[in-house]
Amino acid sequence: MKNFSQNDIISIRDLSKDNLEEIYSKTNEIIEMKAEERREIARGKTLGYLFFEPSTRTRLSFQSAMALLGGTSFGIADATSSSVQKGESLADTVRIMSGYTDAIVLRHSLDGSSKFAAEVSSKPIINAGSGTEEHPTQAIQDLYTIKKELGKIDGKNIGIVGDLKYGRTVYSLLYGLSNYDVNVHLISPESLKIRSDSTYNLKENLSYTESENLDEYIEDLDVLYVTRIQKERFPDEEEYVKVKGSYVIGQDVVNKMKDDSILLHPLPRIDEISTDVDSSKQAKYFQQAEYGKFTRAAILSLLLQ
Amino acid sequence: MKNFSQNDIISIRDLSKDNLEEIYSKTNEIIEMKAEERREIARGKTLGYLFFEPSTRTRLSFQSAMALLGGTSFGIADATSSSVQKGESLADTVRIMSGYTDAIVLRHSLDGSSKFAAEVSSKPIINAGSGTEEHPTQAIQDLYTIKKELGKIDGKNIGIVGDLKYGRTVYSLLYGLSNYDVNVHLISPESLKIRSDSTYNLKENLSYTESENLDEYIEDLDVLYVTRIQKERFPDEEEYVKVKGSYVIGQDVVNKMKDDSILLHPLPRIDEISTDVDSSKQAKYFQQAEYGKFTRAAILSLLLQ
Amino acid sequence: MKNFSQNDIISIRDLSKDNLEEIYSKTNEIIEMKAEERREIARGKTLGYLFFEPSTRTRLSFQSAMALLGGTSFGIADATSSSVQKGESLADTVRIMSGYTDAIVLRHSLDGSSKFAAEVSSKPIINAGSGTEEHPTQAIQDLYTIKKELGKIDGKNIGIVGDLKYGRTVYSLLYGLSNYDVNVHLISPESLKIRSDSTYNLKENLSYTESENLDEYIEDLDVLYVTRIQKERFPDEEEYVKVKGSYVIGQDVVNKMKDDSILLHPLPRIDEISTDVDSSKQAKYFQQAEYGKFTRAAILSLLLQ
Repeated sequence: MKNFSQNDIISIRDLSKDNLEEIYSKTNEIIEMKAEERREIARGKTLGYLFFEPSTRTRLSFQSAMALLGGTSFGIADATSSSVQKGESLADTVRIMSGYTDAIVLRHSLDGSSKFAAEVSSKPIINAGSGTEEHPTQAIQDLYTIKKELGKIDGKNIGIVGDLKYGRTVYSLLYGLSNYDVNVHLISPESLKIRSDSTYNLKENLSYTESENLDEYIEDLDVLYVTRIQKERFPDEEEYVKVKGSYVIGQDVVNKMKDDSILLHPLPRIDEISTDVDSSKQAKYFQQAEYGKFTRAAILSLLLQ
Repeated sequence: MKNFSQNDIISIRDLSKDNLEEIYSKTNEIIEMKAEERREIARGKTLGYLFFEPSTRTRLSFQSAMALLGGTSFGIADATSSSVQKGESLADTVRIMSGYTDAIVLRHSLDGSSKFAAEVSSKPIINAGSGTEEHPTQAIQDLYTIKKELGKIDGKNIGIVGDLKYGRTVYSLLYGLSNYDVNVHLISPESLKIRSDSTYNLKENLSYTESENLDEYIEDLDVLYVTRIQKERFPDEEEYVKVKGSYVIGQDVVNKMKDDSILLHPLPRIDEISTDVDSSKQAKYFQQAEYGKFTRAAILSLLLQ
Repeated sequence: MKNFSQNDIISIRDLSKDNLEEIYSKTNEIIEMKAEERREIARGKTLGYLFFEPSTRTRLSFQSAMALLGGTSFGIADATSSSVQKGESLADTVRIMSGYTDAIVLRHSLDGSSKFAAEVSSKPIINAGSGTEEHPTQAIQDLYTIKKELGKIDGKNIGIVGDLKYGRTVYSLLYGLSNYDVNVHLISPESLKIRSDSTYNLKENLSYTESENLDEYIEDLDVLYVTRIQKERFPDEEEYVKVKGSYVIGQDVVNKMKDDSILLHPLPRIDEISTDVDSSKQAKYFQQAEYGKFTRAAILSLLLQ
């Protein structure tokens, strides 16, 4: 991607390291701006959201980002109460929405949906999660959090634990991390390892280990990124119960972590991290969520200019 | 209607030709205005929407219109998550909403609902679709599109094809067209002809033919207005399949159309128009949808002044 | 409560008489302000709403209040389309929302939910109805209406009729009234009397009678506050039908009321008050609803400062 202006955010893979650094800079700039100055950035601009899958967090963080910039947002929070029910195609919905707004945020269950939407839209499309692999704005938020909290991303030991197979967040984060010189440790039960079809061109750019045992790495990690393990992903309940217990991050696990390491989670959390860990020094997941407001404001600011 | 200020938009039948022309002028004015100027029109004003039937397009176009004018909109997008479920009457809901906002957009399945709402509301009511006949803001958008794209409405040959019996859009458009000197050709299967009870006082002001055969007229049309044919309207599936095929507008049909004719559709489209037609010169339905943002902004601007 | 700035509104019991009077003053101030002046109060500020129970009226009145002050609101109108479905805790939802907005409005079925939310939120929490007892902003709106319409609250005879057992509105109103020197008459069927567990520390500050017979008091009342009687609260339908009829306020009942008395209802109304009463001098429930916009604007204005 050459420049952001009036462009789309479809995949984290489209963003070079320079693109990412530009977003981080813009994020810092927005955080430091005076409120009155920020409100001028998208004044009179509109953001349309089209959520074909439920997602509170992502929608609200985009709405808060747009409000921060002085703009307005509206759309479809839940595709069940929409014309989509009348059988309208995604292409038509997007095309019409692009006549109503200055940019569109799209969440859709299908791989490629955002790319497809961008082809028919006359306004920038921002992928707010599609299919099994893509959630670029989440990855940007995650990378920004690491950089902001640890000063830099290069040279860090990053553990990612939990369900690595089904979470689109993990794939986007890995592709994002492949721009940096990091050591990644993937920790999951055998049945929830990352899919090779989604990572085959990742290996040349990113060095990572795979393991079932968090204890091997915990003491050396700078970042521990925890993901949700969903019961419905398991073939039988017995295996779920076994696995679930082994990846719950409690205070005992945090105690093994370095003093200046950080614990992240894309949220929502069910019980992968005990709530008694929330007050620990390492717990940064709520901060990470709040950074999402500013990274999304930065993205909107770059696209709408 | 004498003037728009603080008045209601209940039926296209309440609007004289002068009223319509005033809306077209205001629409042109708003399109040409600078963004900063537009944003002053409804600054600090609020639009409440009450949708008792699902409708994405109409709601979003009103929200985009209100945002364009610098105002705020909020309301009930889906009456199932509202006090209506607690058994509240439409009158009470409207009365309370009129205490919260500067104007109300109402969609409701009952004929007469908007008229009734206007009687109890202390603020202007805009009918966003009621019962079987009324959808005045859609008709205004359709008329504006014809005028904008063809220069004038008078003297044009206008074909309307599809389900003419059940679509409220068609009736409102016909009443709107009755202000002009046009030739209308209604083309539908026998079972989906327009209802005589909804058109009995139309015939004196509008000359139209009825036919099952689009081919008779296609070469002479200036406007071909296509409507959705809904499967559930047919007594048996066999008839549906037969009819459906015969009114699908493909490139072969468009090829017969005049070079400077236009193809319209109120949308959402299912498959009445093939997507390969989208790129044809005649296809103006997405443009028509976008004009709806500006015609609604014009209406809001006139009512709120 | 010492002062409102950045504080929470959890329970009407936390508010002293001085606090209440400060809200009334602020409400009057906001009503009298010029629109341009009002719009500066929350300019660039955001209100997040989290509704875990449906409530149109309360949500819309907060949205209209925020718009009046020039601010933006967004959130979850209906918890079924949210991450809550993914099993997220209330604490996490609130914590994240507090990173996105400047204040949070919460409606939740559990007693204590707002207090709990306030403990984890970094921004002010406003209880928009919780559990069986608390609906402080409704009580403030009710008290303000009495004061505004009758000049003062002290010395007034206030009848409250209907379902006094299950309505959270009644308990909050009673606690609010306990700041004033009033005579309260509670009128309900035996099975819908107020719960003693919710009022045991009310009696020292508020004098009230309990009766089944509205006729005993009707002529002396300054305020008649009517609540909804819900069918589903009754053990058998026969009792419901019997009770329902006896508390419907028709014109015959209003005729017995003093000329300068007022008839209130928190709304939505089903049929506890006949619609022919709406035009009577005493009927102030729609006015009461509209005051809610201004009292909520006053509350927001005080909290956000």
